[in-house]
Amino acid sequence: MRMITLTEAATLLNENDNFHILTHRYPDGDTLGSAFALCYALRTLGKNANVKVCGKIPSKFSYLTENYCEQDFVCDFVVSVDVAALSLLGELEEEYKERINLCIDHHGSNSMVADNICVDASCAAAAEIIYVLLKAMKVEITRDIANCIYTGISTDTGCFCYTNTTAQTHHIAAEIIDLGCDFALINRINFETKTRAKLKMERMVYDTMEFYCGGKCAIIYTTLAMQKALGAGDDEMEGLASIPRQIEGVKMGITMREKEDGTFKVSVRTNDGVNASDFCAHFGGGGHVAASGCSIKGDLATVKYLLIKEAEKLL
Amino acid sequence: MRMITLTEAATLLNENDNFHILTHRYPDGDTLGSAFALCYALRTLGKNANVKVCGKIPSKFSYLTENYCEQDFVCDFVVSVDVAALSLLGELEEEYKERINLCIDHHGSNSMVADNICVDASCAAAAEIIYVLLKAMKVEITRDIANCIYTGISTDTGCFCYTNTTAQTHHIAAEIIDLGCDFALINRINFETKTRAKLKMERMVYDTMEFYCGGKCAIIYTTLAMQKALGAGDDEMEGLASIPRQIEGVKMGITMREKEDGTFKVSVRTNDGVNASDFCAHFGGGGHVAASGCSIKGDLATVKYLLIKEAEKLL
Repeated sequence: MRMITLTEAATLLNENDNFHILTHRYPDGDTLGSAFALCYALRTLGKNANVKVCGKIPSKFSYLTENYCEQDFVCDFVVSVDVAALSLLGELEEEYKERINLCIDHHGSNSMVADNICVDASCAAAAEIIYVLLKAMKVEITRDIANCIYTGISTDTGCFCYTNTTAQTHHIAAEIIDLGCDFALINRINFETKTRAKLKMERMVYDTMEFYCGGKCAIIYTTLAMQKALGAGDDEMEGLASIPRQIEGVKMGITMREKEDGTFKVSVRTNDGVNASDFCAHFGGGGHVAASGCSIKGDLATVKYLLIKEAEKLL
Repeated sequence: MRMITLTEAATLLNENDNFHILTHRYPDGDTLGSAFALCYALRTLGKNANVKVCGKIPSKFSYLTENYCEQDFVCDFVVSVDVAALSLLGELEEEYKERINLCIDHHGSNSMVADNICVDASCAAAAEIIYVLLKAMKVEITRDIANCIYTGISTDTGCFCYTNTTAQTHHIAAEIIDLGCDFALINRINFETKTRAKLKMERMVYDTMEFYCGGKCAIIYTTLAMQKALGAGDDEMEGLASIPRQIEGVKMGITMREKEDGTFKVSVRTNDGVNASDFCAHFGGGGHVAASGCSIKGDLATVKYLLIKEAEKLL
């Protein structure tokens, strides 16, 4: 296992063939955008490449895969993108955990096991690294690739709003807009469209909001029963995590989402440098300083109690 | 009255002194950001300049005026920024309507009366024009100026989300972030902070939502009574206009806001090229294709009826 530079990663990719590209579970815009951008790029170089996704690709991202079809080949080289830990590979972990050749990621908390690890935590999105990497590889950025990169960058920065955004993020956005990326359509899909079911879910979630630590911590939750009552799927759940942190005075916004396996998926978003990654590490999770996650087993009351107790220590 | 280029506008500003800079009524991030950016810039050139605001500056924009204090001088040159029509000057109209020397704007529907008119409708924000103008004037972009420009650009593009965003918008954002602009703070104030009163207002507004034209038109409203019940002021009202257009299938989102003077302030946001400016022109208003406004006198039921009748013709 060795840490490598972006230039070394570019060389590795240029020198190999027959790629499987792995995404993280509960796939989001960044892991999917990074994976399909890299896949399309490798194919433009005449190489074989497939993307392996754990779980279903949310339907709103179908535009990413319009020009994708699975290729038939024997895999020689495995790359993971935007995957911070082996466990986040989900159902892909078993098959791939001992044969990842290259890990490309932007999580400071990265703990992957791979032959080569290329992490740049200064990048707002894994897709930002992929873009710089593709330029180093002298790949021509097609519109499909531009759309993938834009999707990763825009979704991981909340459309250039979060503190992880940098001048480089905007430079890349400008470049790929000039290359014809469909940013208007992508923004509309990811930031400007709510189904009526999602609207109802948001209103229901607002009703669950409770404040702790003198208003510095806000918690919301969704239960399986709520999701069932509204016919809400993954698409309706997206973006809920950003709600509690937005309230004035809140330094830590916690979103709990009940899953079928008896756990709650917990998303933590913080302001003012409160360390969400440390907080989540306490529960076996991790991520970024201002945006992290973990999974906790238990019923609603218990999981909420554990989270509040930990928040009270911190705030 | 003559249309002039940006270079000519730069020359005019460099050659004159003792400026009053006018903003539009219900001042928003773009008119304020543009005005204070220009004011700070003229002052760095050793000139006298004051900003004239119609109405109160929303408290959340107080960071724009931290280093501003009114200067004492006799005005020689009047500039309007982001003002599309004389009537939008509000209480400033009477004093200035016949003595505006330069109008700088980005509204395609601009109908101002001024000696010199510099309009670039390809710019997402008036602040985008101001930035290019200041560079043409060889002004050093201080952090205060950068913060003003970022405020104008980010608020008028919904943080780089709306279709008016261009590669140039992102290039400018990158440049002013490199110049030290406090984009994280500005984003947090404008896009990531909701007072509890605003949260309550949003929930109340969701309850007013009605759909017309087979779901293609969504209308929401706030009344004075609702605003009073929640103790909601201008700050709580901001951003409501973006709510109805977000619903899946909606091509025209209409937001009605009751004002003290017996009118409703109407904001129209559209998708798929539906012309909001034409729609609002029918009621004496105007703006951009996807975002326009007008004021209509009457009670809730009447104004709503007029709007729906017009929407049904269009959709």
